[in-house]
Formats: sequence, C-alpha cells, structure tokens
Amino acid sequence: MRLKTTDLSKVKTQDVFWSKYIRLVPKEVLTYQWAVLNDAMEGAEPSHAIRNFRIAAGQEKGDFYGFVFQDSDLAKWLEAAAFTLAWEKDPELEKHVDEAIDLIGEAQRPDGYLDTYFIIREESRQFTNLREGHELYCAGHLIEAGVAYYKVSGKRKLLDICCRMADHIVEVFHQPPLERAIPGHEEIELALVKLYEVTGKEAYLTMAKDFIDRRGQKPHYFFEEAKRPGWKQIFGSHFGDGGYYLDYAQTDEPVRIQKTARGHAVRAVYLYSAMADVAAYTKDRELLSACETLYENIVNRQMYITGGIGSSGILERFTVDYDLPNAMNYAESCASIGLAMFCRRMAQVTGEARYMDTAETALSNTVLAGIAMDGKSFFYVNPLAVWPAACIPGTSREHVKAVRQKWFGCACCPPNIARTLASLGEYCFFEEENGFRVNLFVSGTSRHRLGDREVELTVRTDYPFDGKVELTLRRAETIKNDEKDIDLQKGRILLRIPAWARKYSLQKNNRNIQTTLEKGYAVIEGPFADGDTFCLELDMPAEYVRANPAVRADAGRVAVRKGPLVYCLEQQDNGTNLEQLIVDPAEPLREIWCDDILKGTLVLEGKGYRAHMPDFDENTLYASAEITYEETPLHFVPYPYWGNRTPGEMLVWVRARERIGTV
Amino acid sequence: MRLKTTDLSKVKTQDVFWSKYIRLVPKEVLTYQWAVLNDAMEGAEPSHAIRNFRIAAGQEKGDFYGFVFQDSDLAKWLEAAAFTLAWEKDPELEKHVDEAIDLIGEAQRPDGYLDTYFIIREESRQFTNLREGHELYCAGHLIEAGVAYYKVSGKRKLLDICCRMADHIVEVFHQPPLERAIPGHEEIELALVKLYEVTGKEAYLTMAKDFIDRRGQKPHYFFEEAKRPGWKQIFGSHFGDGGYYLDYAQTDEPVRIQKTARGHAVRAVYLYSAMADVAAYTKDRELLSACETLYENIVNRQMYITGGIGSSGILERFTVDYDLPNAMNYAESCASIGLAMFCRRMAQVTGEARYMDTAETALSNTVLAGIAMDGKSFFYVNPLAVWPAACIPGTSREHVKAVRQKWFGCACCPPNIARTLASLGEYCFFEEENGFRVNLFVSGTSRHRLGDREVELTVRTDYPFDGKVELTLRRAETIKNDEKDIDLQKGRILLRIPAWARKYSLQKNNRNIQTTLEKGYAVIEGPFADGDTFCLELDMPAEYVRANPAVRADAGRVAVRKGPLVYCLEQQDNGTNLEQLIVDPAEPLREIWCDDILKGTLVLEGKGYRAHMPDFDENTLYASAEITYEETPLHFVPYPYWGNRTPGEMLVWVRARERIGTV
Repeated sequence: MRLKTTDLSKVKTQDVFWSKYIRLVPKEVLTYQWAVLNDAMEGAEPSHAIRNFRIAAGQEKGDFYGFVFQDSDLAKWLEAAAFTLAWEKDPELEKHVDEAIDLIGEAQRPDGYLDTYFIIREESRQFTNLREGHELYCAGHLIEAGVAYYKVSGKRKLLDICCRMADHIVEVFHQPPLERAIPGHEEIELALVKLYEVTGKEAYLTMAKDFIDRRGQKPHYFFEEAKRPGWKQIFGSHFGDGGYYLDYAQTDEPVRIQKTARGHAVRAVYLYSAMADVAAYTKDRELLSACETLYENIVNRQMYITGGIGSSGILERFTVDYDLPNAMNYAESCASIGLAMFCRRMAQVTGEARYMDTAETALSNTVLAGIAMDGKSFFYVNPLAVWPAACIPGTSREHVKAVRQKWFGCACCPPNIARTLASLGEYCFFEEENGFRVNLFVSGTSRHRLGDREVELTVRTDYPFDGKVELTLRRAETIKNDEKDIDLQKGRILLRIPAWARKYSLQKNNRNIQTTLEKGYAVIEGPFADGDTFCLELDMPAEYVRANPAVRADAGRVAVRKGPLVYCLEQQDNGTNLEQLIVDPAEPLREIWCDDILKGTLVLEGKGYRAHMPDFDENTLYASAEITYEETPLHFVPYPYWGNRTPGEMLVWVRARERIGTV
Repeated sequence: MRLKTTDLSKVKTQDVFWSKYIRLVPKEVLTYQWAVLNDAMEGAEPSHAIRNFRIAAGQEKGDFYGFVFQDSDLAKWLEAAAFTLAWEKDPELEKHVDEAIDLIGEAQRPDGYLDTYFIIREESRQFTNLREGHELYCAGHLIEAGVAYYKVSGKRKLLDICCRMADHIVEVFHQPPLERAIPGHEEIELALVKLYEVTGKEAYLTMAKDFIDRRGQKPHYFFEEAKRPGWKQIFGSHFGDGGYYLDYAQTDEPVRIQKTARGHAVRAVYLYSAMADVAAYTKDRELLSACETLYENIVNRQMYITGGIGSSGILERFTVDYDLPNAMNYAESCASIGLAMFCRRMAQVTGEARYMDTAETALSNTVLAGIAMDGKSFFYVNPLAVWPAACIPGTSREHVKAVRQKWFGCACCPPNIARTLASLGEYCFFEEENGFRVNLFVSGTSRHRLGDREVELTVRTDYPFDGKVELTLRRAETIKNDEKDIDLQKGRILLRIPAWARKYSLQKNNRNIQTTLEKGYAVIEGPFADGDTFCLELDMPAEYVRANPAVRADAGRVAVRKGPLVYCLEQQDNGTNLEQLIVDPAEPLREIWCDDILKGTLVLEGKGYRAHMPDFDENTLYASAEITYEETPLHFVPYPYWGNRTPGEMLVWVRARERIGTV
C-alpha cells in the first residue's frame, strides 16, 4: 500500500496559520532566490549557481564557485517553482523555469552526466569520490525538480534530461568500479523512486533499492574508493585527517539492522524516506520494519519537541539517545524537512496517523522557524534557547544565529523551505480508492475523488490556534438538471485525530455522529450529500509538557505546547534574562489573541515568577546570596515566530516551579 | 615593587591536600613523561619531541613529527624536572636533564636560532609566520627551563643556549622585516623577563616590553606578514579561510586599552603575566592598570567557580561576559595554570592577597583536576557537568572526556601541570625585606629571612578541609651557646586571609592576638622568639554558592564550596542522572571525613531530593507528567578528584530547591 498525495493543482489554501508563509513563496521567496541564484541580489552572499551551469554549458568562461553541491540550490528552486505553478499561474516564473531548464540541458554531457563542479573542475574525477562528491545528491534534487515540473506542466524537457542522467547512473553504477558504490549524502534514492513513479521504469526503483542495500556492506566502499589512484579529497577539515565516520553517512552497518538514527541528520532522513518508498513498492516488510524502528528511535529519543533533529552543533548530526542540548545544538531546518518527508511516506505506506503528527510538528515549528515572516531571511540552525550576546564567531555558538541570515554560502535551507511550503498540499491530503484523508487542518478548498464523483472540500479553521475544524462538501462536477437530487456515491472520508487531542467530537450537519478510529483516523462513511458539513472539535488546550527525565538538558523545566505548536518566551515580551523566570505549571495558561504582533497570533499567558538576587552587582560572580521571587505573568509566542522582532533572547524550556512537600 | 618568591630548595611540603599530587611528580609524572617524550611509552600517542631534536641536531634522519609547538613539551618537562631537583635529589633525573640539554645544544643553529620544526622542515621560513609558527612560544618555554635549571643547579649550559637564542631574537626582532613582529601565542614575553632577572640584561626586558606594546598596532602585523612572498599557512582549518581573529591573539587593539579578556585563554593569561612583570620592572603604572582591569574582567565575569577560563569548547577561548556553559566548555588545564601565574605576579607586584585567592582557586580545582591521582592520565578540558554517554567523537562534545587521557598528540597540559605542581612552593610564600608572607596554607617546612636571621617555618594544617593552620618558628642557624637567650630580630610575618573566610582569629603561643589587615594579609609584627607558635583559624564552613544571575547556565542552581575547594556530585555516590537531583541550600552541609575513597577526602553531605516522573517510560519523550520528590542525602566530593573512580556523570551546579512564597 502507498496512499497517493493529492495533486497540488487541486489544493488552494487560505489559512490563518500557513498562508502568511505560503503566500510569500511565489512573489517573495522565489523572486528573491532567483535573483540570488543569478548573483543579482545585493547584500546576499554570491551563489554562482546559474553561472556554474553557464560555464559548464560553455556559454561563459570562468571557474566553478561554491560548494560541491551548489547545483542542488537551483534544482530545489526549480522544484519549488514547479510546485508553485501548480496552484498559481505566473508566466514570468514559468519563463525563468524554462530558461533554467534549457541551460541545464546545454550543460549536460552527451552520456547524460550532469554536475557542474566535476564538469568544470574535475572532468576526469566523475564519481571517483562519492563520499564527498555530492554528484548523486545533486542528481537527486534535479530529478525531483524534473518530476515535479512534468507533473505540473506536462513539459518533458527536464524530465528527459533527468532520465538520460538517471540512465547513465543506472548503467555506470552496475559496472566496475562503481558496482558497489553508494552516495555519501543520500537523496538520489528517493528521487529515483519518484522517477519510477512517473516513468514506470523498474530500473530506477531497482537502482534506489541497490543504493539502500549497498550501505554498510564490507569492505566499506568509501575506504575502497579512497585507495584508488588519483583519489582526491574535497572537504578539508571535517572528514579529512581525523577519519571519516562511517556512521556519519549511515553506512557503518547495513540499514536493515540499524536500530538508532545516526550521523548527519539530513542524510539519515532522506535515506529513510527512500527506504519507506522502496519498502512499499517492492513489498519489503523487512525494510519497512527497519523504517519503523528508526522512526521510533528518532521520535522517542532523539527529537526536539519542535520536531528538530540533529542535536550536535558540530557536523549537524544525531548524537545519542536523550542528548538534546538547547543552546548549542544544530536542529537544521533541512533535517526537519527531511523528517516530514520521511513521516509522510510512513503515513502513506502504513496508513497510520501518528506519522503525520510528527510531520506536522516538524513543519509547524522548525521548518517555519527557518524562514522569516518577510520570506527573505533564513535560519539553518534552530536552537531552543538563544542568548544573542553569546552567539559570536569563533566559538561553540558561532553556528547559532539570533537573527535570520539573508542567504548562506551553503544555501541548502532557503530553497528547501520554499519547495516544502509550496508543496504543503501534498501533506494535507491523501487519496484513497474511494475517498480521501485529511491529514493537516488547513483552511482552503481542494478537490478529491469520493466514491466515483469528484467533490470540492472546503476547510475552515483557526487550527492550531483553535481545535475546531469545519469541512463542507460540494459536488465538483457541473450539476445537470436531472441529477440535482441524487446523493453523492458512497465512499469514505478519514480525518486525522492527532495524539495531542485529549478527546474529540464530530458533527455532521450539526448533529453528533460516532465514528470509528482507524490507525488514528476518524472514519466517516458515506453516503454523502452535496452541502454536507462536518465539524470536528479537537480538545487541545495549551499545556505544559515535560521531557523524559533522561533528557538532562530539560531537567526541572517545562515547555508550552498547543496541539502541534510549541511556544517560547521572547525577551520582547518578558524582559531580559529569561533564565531567571520560573513558570508555575500547576496554573492554567490563558489564551489571548493578539492582532498587533507577529502578523496576528495567539499568545499564551502563564503564571510565573522572576527571581531576583539583590546581593549581586555586575562585578560579583559567585556569592552566597538571598533570592526573592516576584510574581509576573509570562507571555509565550509560537516558536516558529521567534526572532521576527527586535533581536533578543528566546527560550523554549522554562524553569518550572517545583512543589516539593506540597502536593 | 615585586615581591620575591621563596627558592624552591627552601620549601618542603608534606600536605594532606597537595602532597598526594606533588609526590607523584618525580617518580610517576616525570618518569612517565620522559618515556613518552622518547616514544617509549606503550598506549600513549607518540610524542617524537626528543627525536625532533635529534633530527635537527643531525644525529638521526627523519622528518619532523607533531605539532609545530612540539619542542615546548620537552621544555616544560625540563622546567618541571629542574623544579623537582630543587627539593628532591635524583641523579638519574639530573642525568636525563643534562642529556636533553646536550641534545638541545647540538640542535641549535650557529646564529642562536632554535626550533626543530623550522630547522627540519622550513629552514628558509624561520620567523615568517609568527601568527601560527609558535617559534617564540617554544623559545619562551625553553628560556623558562633554562632559568629554572640554572637557579637550581648553577649549571649554565642551558641558560647559555637560551641567552644565545634570546640574543638572536633581540637582534632580528629589531630589524626589518621583524621590527614590528609579535608572536601569535604569547609566552616569550614572560620568559624574557625571567631571563632578565637572572642575567640583568636590560635588552631582554625591553624586548618583552616591545612585544607587549606592539600588539594591536596598525597595520596589523599578521596581515602584513601574510602578504609577503613565500608566506605559508601552517594550521588549516582553525585560522585559514574563515579568517584569523585578531582578538583571538589579543592583538585587535593595543593591550593598554583592552578592557575585557579575549581570545585564546592560555595566550591571554601568559600575556597578562608578562604585562604584570614588565609593569613592575619598568614602573609602568598604565600597564599595571591594564592588568588590573583585565584581571577584574576575568574574575568578575569570565571565570568558572573552579578557576577555569576559556568557556568556548571551540578554540579554547574566552567568549563574552557571564557566558559560562558547563557541559560543552573548554576551561583548559593550561589556561588555569596561566591564570595562577598571572595572579601570583599581580600579588607580587601589588601586595594584594585577593590575587592569591584566585590563584589558589585555579590551582586547587582546575589544575589538580587536570591530572589523575596516579599521575599518568590528564584532562585538557575541564567541564563542570559531564554525561559520559554524550561525549562522543564527531559531535559538539567530542573534546569533553569523561576519562583522563594517557597523553595527547597536542600535549601541552601534562608537562605544564607537572611544572606547576613542582613549583608550588613559589606560590606558597613571598619574601619581603624583613619578613615573609604565607600565601597558601600547605603543611611542610620552609626557610625564610626574618629580620636579619634565617628561620625555619613549620606549617601544620588540614586546609582546605579545615580552616585551622598552625605555624611554628625556629631559628635556622646553629645556635651558639652565647646566643641561646637572644630573641629573633624584629621583622614581620604576613598571613593571607582569603576572601572566603567569614571571620578569622589568630593566637600566638595559645593567646589571642590582634592583627591589622594589610591588603588582605594579617600582619604579625615581631619580635619573635625561637619556638613561637601561631594558630590561625579561618572560619570557612562548606557553603552553597550561587552564580551571578547573568550567568544563564547556572540559573536556579547552586554550587558547593569550602574555602577555595569546589565540590561536585559524582554518579558513584549519588546514582545516575544527576540532573534529577535537587539540593536544599537552606539546610546545612555535613562534613564527613572518608579515608576509604579518593585516597582520603572530606565528603560533604547535603539534604536533597530526587525527582521521579513515573509517567515516562523509555519510549516517551514528551508528556504532561506528574512529579514526585524523594528525599535523599546528596554526597559531594572535591571537584579536582572527579573522574578517579568508575567513569560516570559529574555535576558542579546542582538544581536548588526554590522556596517561592515561603520565606
């Protein structure tokens, strides 16, 4: 089983929570990023991505510039543009896309090979350093773009480029010396599955499966390739003299026996996404079981409450179970995107709603935090505690930024966020044989098959600020006169009931109905009628949450969550030095809608205290001191919105009042 | 003014606190390190330090191996050996020292130049990359060794080698292209002052002053040298493409206007040590004032309670005021050694006791923590919170070790600790014109001038485990018959009263006496008699201490301290997951002497609680959960002793019970 996502052309969102970001994509994000990719944006680091393709195509003289994976920035932009064109006509954007595709075609070698770094710099070293070379990573992103644009526009040019490239890969990666080779950074695997889906060509699926199953086999391929004559290191410090960590690239042991998520977080979840896909298409129960084990490890032991993963500030990687430091972590935006991708696939394959809980958590918190409310600046790193004064260059907090950055030399996150927002519709709904599933509660209209009819669904909700979701069904076909009284055919609609809903109720046309729960989805069976309305009420009050006691970093602390949305304290609302604030989790949180901050948001107010130690002046560092506690309300704002006002401190895990000896 | 330290040959210690480490130096540490320096120690990383000298001397073929500052390992060992020979005869050790000195002499170039890295590898690049080359750093350590051995043995050979080397430095560093040059890593400055002290040659003092005052001058010398033809980078990642931080080497602005300690912590305090020396010898009030400002900044804003400095885990450096993270910091052992060096000089120059408080804190906690109780393994990094499972390679906690290491590729700390322990006597006492000062309370006997007589002082104390210090005076000269009734001449003895003594009392021959306090020293005026005994009682109970509220990392937490000695929780005594322990600082700490652990120590017992959250199982990461608190005694052991038993968790700053609404 693998449930289909709904075509993006059939989903239009107009939502209090999501639209403030999604509507930035066509006009702000893509325009801005197109300018950056063309090195035409003042104040941003140069990208050179387009110029690399021009040079590779022989249209311009010059050297390659940027990271070895620079091509993927353009590919992700193309995919985001394709997704956007599915729901918003934009002739100029389409023109840019077609121009870029023409250029990519010019750069491609006759044998199908396509990677500007190696074409420009290291023609003779193609596929010789797979551990660092990122050629297959870039190829994967290009394939994702080609598939997306073909599905949206019907235009085959980029798809054909990708097929030639993929055919070349399939050929050379089944011959010596590459017959055991794997990519250092996974991505090609999930892309090949997508290419298989649109072309039906089994070789792509098989190649994806082979790349997956080659990992962890001995002798380790990365050691083998490095022994060959002419092998050349690409990255200096990270992977060089100090030894390359096999676990960093998830290849220390075969993936089927891996029990814990490990290594570079983005690589890991891209790999797991492909594993879930391949498991579904090849009916490989063992591989799916490995996915389940790895998912459980992440979600139960290695994930921030914000859906962030990769807790080491160095090397953007998983560490060990329960190691979730808040102020010096990484929790890359791209890693949470990958986690959402993995979870969506697990939901598609298993039909289980809980995976979408995790996808929603990652998307609503860490992914949205990655982009500013103006769409023009970005976080790579998503800490849960920030003290701006201490985030300085050349220190352990160098990577932590208190202000989003315009563009990065390594620019993976911005276009990745763009393509994710532009394709939110694929997370919202799944199509079934005779109905559909509502995964995310996002206001807007969409079209689905229900039984043998097409229906238009309208969703109205303030979720996640409120747990009430109204859904209205309309026949989508023109109604002929003689059909007007005929009911919609039987079929079924499934509504995801998130784990954080303490209870829920469902009304049909204002009357309570009982539903069964199927793997976390409330099942509404037909028949349905034109104009049917459903009202789902999820009981999801704002609440204080604790972390597993094994998470040392969160001991004695609580976080605030409402549904999927994590809240945080910001200095703007609570004064400086958030660590001196103590919240009383025994007191309820008040919900206050504020139109005037952060483009409109629900603020949560808790009862708290500020600790004062008057014995200290600024020149006393340690002392035996008295403390007084001043009662003060604490104001929490959504985590994704942090850092959109005057830069200041931010804190998710707040010290909690302990009631020792008083129950 | 610059008070003299007491000759090490006149100080013999036999102390409950210090001797368990000091007595390791001759037999364990120096023997072990000599083997390591000769690559004869199994299980330790190869040092190659001696071989580098042999190759440079033409006695052997081969390439240089090790860090560019590898020579300094041998130099520090030599200095430690010299100090040791001052108080312990050891013909074999002396033989090794003389052999090493002969070898060093063979390696020296005719012009006086001496650095094996450049002699072996880059003969033509001597002094061309001072920002990274460490030649002056190595020269400085050799000079320190030469001075120490000359003072101890009267043997001039190494001193003469050093003078030739220093003369060469003085010459070339006052000519183009080096007439504005400075070392990247300070050390030569304080060494040149020592050389000036034994030779009386003003040029050395002037050179030290010049190196100090050249820092921060524009155009920045490190930029200038890097522009010259043939300049070659030595370190790759740290200082390379990402730009070299001027502040990292304390040369972003002139040292006289620097207000905050900055950059690499060891470099900083070595520089400040020299500044204090030069200020004293040149009567430079402005320079001394800069020292005072920098000292205040460190001690009031940038120092761990353990006397550790350099809070960034990356690049071993200072960050910003009050930024003192506990679990991912650096706090290098060598930096605390340098801090003690700086503080001792400030005490010598100003006569103020408070500097010795800081020196004592650094020595008693971080420096001692740097060496295992068997003398054979070492910490570089001195965290204040350790969770061993999370200290894994390739992550932000890679540098944090839960177990001391045998030897390091970069081996600065082990021989630095050895030379510091071997010279503890220089910290214990200062000599004055007609008396002496007792700085550290260490059991043993020592000889001092008092008035115009030499006296033998015997100190008996269990300090810092107890605040009682007994001192007995004896005439050191053979007493002639006709002198037996004559009192010792007038003179004065000053006893340091540490800031943490809430009050103190002093008895002379069992009768209370009143003393005046002079800059933190209790002044005992003569006349004195043979056999006089003094009993100082410092009131320094174990206490709970808080950090300045601006230290975010310590919010809501307390540390335990008794006098200079910081205590910590270890897993062995308190179970796993120390973060779930809460101590009640309103309850007194009980002092328990334990003979059977850690070679005998005072353990402190506090009243505490362990938090339990039964709602969590190992697969629940976040939940709205109930907490119960189980009362439990908490057992604290001295911080320097941590990590000497089964590896486990360690914690200095413990969560404190808050009493909100109940005063």
